[in-house]
Amino acid sequence: MANFAERLFEAVEKKKSPLCVGLDPRIGKIPECIKEQAIETASGDMLAATAEALYRFNTAIIEAVADVVPVIKPNIAFYEKFGPLGFEAYIKTVKSAMDAGLVVLGDVKRGDIGSTSGSYANEFLGKVGLIDGSKFSLFDGAIDAITVNAYFGTDSTEPFLGFCSPEYGKGAFLLCKTSNPSSEDIQDVFTSEDMTVCEVVAELIDAWGEKYVGSNGYSSVAAVVGATSDMQEALRKRMPKTPFLVPGYGAQGGGAGGVVPSFDENGMGAVVNSSRNVIFAYEKLMDGDKPKYAPEQFADAAREAAIASTRDIVGALKKYKKDNIFR
Amino acid sequence: MANFAERLFEAVEKKKSPLCVGLDPRIGKIPECIKEQAIETASGDMLAATAEALYRFNTAIIEAVADVVPVIKPNIAFYEKFGPLGFEAYIKTVKSAMDAGLVVLGDVKRGDIGSTSGSYANEFLGKVGLIDGSKFSLFDGAIDAITVNAYFGTDSTEPFLGFCSPEYGKGAFLLCKTSNPSSEDIQDVFTSEDMTVCEVVAELIDAWGEKYVGSNGYSSVAAVVGATSDMQEALRKRMPKTPFLVPGYGAQGGGAGGVVPSFDENGMGAVVNSSRNVIFAYEKLMDGDKPKYAPEQFADAAREAAIASTRDIVGALKKYKKDNIFR
Repeated sequence: MANFAERLFEAVEKKKSPLCVGLDPRIGKIPECIKEQAIETASGDMLAATAEALYRFNTAIIEAVADVVPVIKPNIAFYEKFGPLGFEAYIKTVKSAMDAGLVVLGDVKRGDIGSTSGSYANEFLGKVGLIDGSKFSLFDGAIDAITVNAYFGTDSTEPFLGFCSPEYGKGAFLLCKTSNPSSEDIQDVFTSEDMTVCEVVAELIDAWGEKYVGSNGYSSVAAVVGATSDMQEALRKRMPKTPFLVPGYGAQGGGAGGVVPSFDENGMGAVVNSSRNVIFAYEKLMDGDKPKYAPEQFADAAREAAIASTRDIVGALKKYKKDNIFR
Repeated sequence: MANFAERLFEAVEKKKSPLCVGLDPRIGKIPECIKEQAIETASGDMLAATAEALYRFNTAIIEAVADVVPVIKPNIAFYEKFGPLGFEAYIKTVKSAMDAGLVVLGDVKRGDIGSTSGSYANEFLGKVGLIDGSKFSLFDGAIDAITVNAYFGTDSTEPFLGFCSPEYGKGAFLLCKTSNPSSEDIQDVFTSEDMTVCEVVAELIDAWGEKYVGSNGYSSVAAVVGATSDMQEALRKRMPKTPFLVPGYGAQGGGAGGVVPSFDENGMGAVVNSSRNVIFAYEKLMDGDKPKYAPEQFADAAREAAIASTRDIVGALKKYKKDNIFR
């Protein structure tokens, strides 16, 4: 399997877009047409219908954006809350995204002490041993990389990093500086070395990734760095080999100009996530003072929003990064 | 619903034990007799049989220890790796533990930005909205508290803390100082205020818990503090109102004397977790140079180990804490 960082940025170049679409479906925002079909399919079992609606919504979004964006990121929190059926919808969503040729980031934010992290790593990226000693792959290799909470330190991230080797070709995105306002509470605390906690984490991440650098100079060990942070430039310097996943663009308030510092001089090195603004674009896109799309056209609206977001970000990169890959 | 911290320490007093049994079943260590029954029940479907074996093993352990320990803590990593069926085994395990009268800590270590943490909080502690607007409770209230990763800061922990109010009576255990050796990488970094990162987290946790203090002086907002850490005393001082969950006693190397600093002067304020050393005690307990228990007696062995661990910890508390609740 090719190095994850190589696959990631090849996909970015091929699609001419550094956009990651966050598949975080909120049941209240899923159009009625999908809900009606799902309830019928599930014969009125409302829990099964909910899971079915998530999956139907997702596959329509995936189909609509697959040729214009490189990466998709379903956040498991929006699925597992519906129990085993929700988990099944997550697995099916991930497999649909893989089948559509997308790079799939499993946004699961797992992390525990070493041996337990090993369970999570095997669950999402590898295989687990069953009762008879046989091996079982829950995701059939469909997840390319997952997000990981690194608060536990080195021994807890090792099981995830193990999958970043060429044998497996997976990636891990470690939380460094998150996009929420309260990320300052812990992540921005100054240390006695005159750097912030997220910078300490950044140095760990870059060091952890050293062994997994691909031919493009980037490691398969990546970092989550919020678009809302003025730390992006400092963190980019501390993590020169580390791909960034940049959440917080769009609905969380960060503009396209704000994400530029996460990219390198060639416009490489980062993918920018947008969730609500893409998948629920049908609620927002206007044609004059009327909605441009009917709810049942949600997938077309998502496609337009994905293209517009790409144009927005690439435009900012062209403005600030002279010789970028998007020219 | 009574305040979680009150329920927690009432259970400790009633059982005369501060022991929490970690239900982290490793399929390779589950006795053959359980495996054979599970394979038969699952008609040879090895994935279903694996989930069935976890559940059968767990219910036997729960039955064996329910009258001698107050708290049980199943770590979801050991279940969800088997997919939806594993998740189902987790839910059934939790409900069995509730039915046996145990305080149930869901060791899930979740955490995300605010709105997404809300999904996790509703999943484990509350109810989620379905497609038709009806409410669905995945755990039927069987989980009393969960573990939470606080790296995101205040706005990400709020959805969990909301369930600590009297209306819900739940608890949240926030990761402060974990028991793994590499916890030093981030958690022991010195800040410019001359305290460590885990002490910064400790002050946040104690402040978050202020609103949720019960009649016993303890909050339903609790902390995870490893037995392997020499920070316990300092953290106890910084978090006088915060119950501690102390992992790392036993298999991870911490002895009973080592956990004493996590308790207050009355021997209250902490529960000590032991996983492998209790649930797989059948492999270790010896009668002279022969195993004391056959594999099929694993539940009896677990009970003996739980009683011995309680005696060990209570003995240390009696030695160091003069007027403790265990006298």
